[in-house]
Amino acid sequence: MRHLRIQVAYDGAEYAGWQTQPGQPTVQQVLHEAWRQVTGEAITLIGSGRTDSGVHALGQVCSGETSSELPPDVLRRALNACLPWDVRVLKVDEAAAGFHAQRDARRKTYRYQVQYGANWHVLLRRHYWQVRGKLDVAAMRQAAEFLIGRHDFSSFQAVGAERVSTIRTLDQLSVEEREVDGYDALWISISSNGFLYNMVRIIVGSLVSIGRGKHSAAWLRDARDARDRSRAGPTAPAHGLILLRVEYDD
Amino acid sequence: MRHLRIQVAYDGAEYAGWQTQPGQPTVQQVLHEAWRQVTGEAITLIGSGRTDSGVHALGQVCSGETSSELPPDVLRRALNACLPWDVRVLKVDEAAAGFHAQRDARRKTYRYQVQYGANWHVLLRRHYWQVRGKLDVAAMRQAAEFLIGRHDFSSFQAVGAERVSTIRTLDQLSVEEREVDGYDALWISISSNGFLYNMVRIIVGSLVSIGRGKHSAAWLRDARDARDRSRAGPTAPAHGLILLRVEYDD
Repeated sequence: MRHLRIQVAYDGAEYAGWQTQPGQPTVQQVLHEAWRQVTGEAITLIGSGRTDSGVHALGQVCSGETSSELPPDVLRRALNACLPWDVRVLKVDEAAAGFHAQRDARRKTYRYQVQYGANWHVLLRRHYWQVRGKLDVAAMRQAAEFLIGRHDFSSFQAVGAERVSTIRTLDQLSVEEREVDGYDALWISISSNGFLYNMVRIIVGSLVSIGRGKHSAAWLRDARDARDRSRAGPTAPAHGLILLRVEYDD
Repeated sequence: MRHLRIQVAYDGAEYAGWQTQPGQPTVQQVLHEAWRQVTGEAITLIGSGRTDSGVHALGQVCSGETSSELPPDVLRRALNACLPWDVRVLKVDEAAAGFHAQRDARRKTYRYQVQYGANWHVLLRRHYWQVRGKLDVAAMRQAAEFLIGRHDFSSFQAVGAERVSTIRTLDQLSVEEREVDGYDALWISISSNGFLYNMVRIIVGSLVSIGRGKHSAAWLRDARDARDRSRAGPTAPAHGLILLRVEYDD
């Protein structure tokens, strides 16, 4: 069998996330269907991780084994011809035997997009969390410092999603100011070797609470140390979140 | 009566353009309905010009007369509370008696958004014309020079849309390269004191034909001089076009 590594982008709005679920449209399922149309073969594409319902990806990676002999770029173009417009295969590469997109992932980077102010930008609605009023970006940045590095992130994990360990290392948590057609926006970028369930969205919801002046920056340090989900902020909406990049060794 | 100047933004995807038409959703109509909900009054809001079905606006301007005494910012917020998410009132200002958003407009600026390359960016699909392959941006810029200034633009007017004069002055026609998440994009900006029907979209369609290598830059000068619609390029799709700004004296 031939091992492949496939890079995929999608607009998550119309999908119940990555992972196949009976009776709901998912990204994995439309990829499986396109694969069958192109090769006649049933494949199982393993994603680097699930993305939630409504979450987007510009650089999701998945792995699969195939007996098809079609060259990588022929596969890419043929799959794209069979896929709906909101799911795109960006790249198909030969991979080492045993390559596993989830197990082998070393680092993931997400971007969360926020637009804020008195009005919302009508063309950003589908991919930005639109927050009314001002945000104190300096306070958000100060608070972000408390989460960078190795910490127990159990306060930033969805209730009921128990993991063996809740220790993770954030390499990056940056809050970048962007101006889009005169509207204020933020790109919040987060990189880690691993994320707990809803972790990015809970961190963003907490930072935005601070930006709104509901809490001080130091509150986030206390929320972190409490190791209690109820001490952190709300879960930011899915549609502002984009899986940007997944990194592997090699 | 009180005279108002109202700045409006909209995502045109779900609308049959600005102008009220029986049986079709239009931006003007949803504004009229919101106005009635807020003030109980029937108003006629005159836009700076029609925008076609599917065209967006970040800075459309309209004028109207009202007997309402609500302060401008109260009107803005109350209208937004009644409007669908894809139509926003950005600003309400008192205007001089007789202010007429169409007749008094001195200059309009449009932006046309193109994304090109081997793949399309899944999150730009609704507001960018996505063109497969490479574009020769230098040739597009060279061609754009032939249209700047005062010319007869009858080659760039939709067939059947006869105007008394087809002479217009383009103050600006620029092709700006943008990189969006690693994808190549162009912002084509056009300013003029007046536009013929479909003029921006035909100019963009012609420039993209040149970018694709289908025609030389000099072809656009010949197309201009021919004063014949059939000599110019195709009409670019509506969804890449944004009315950015309308300027008035004062």
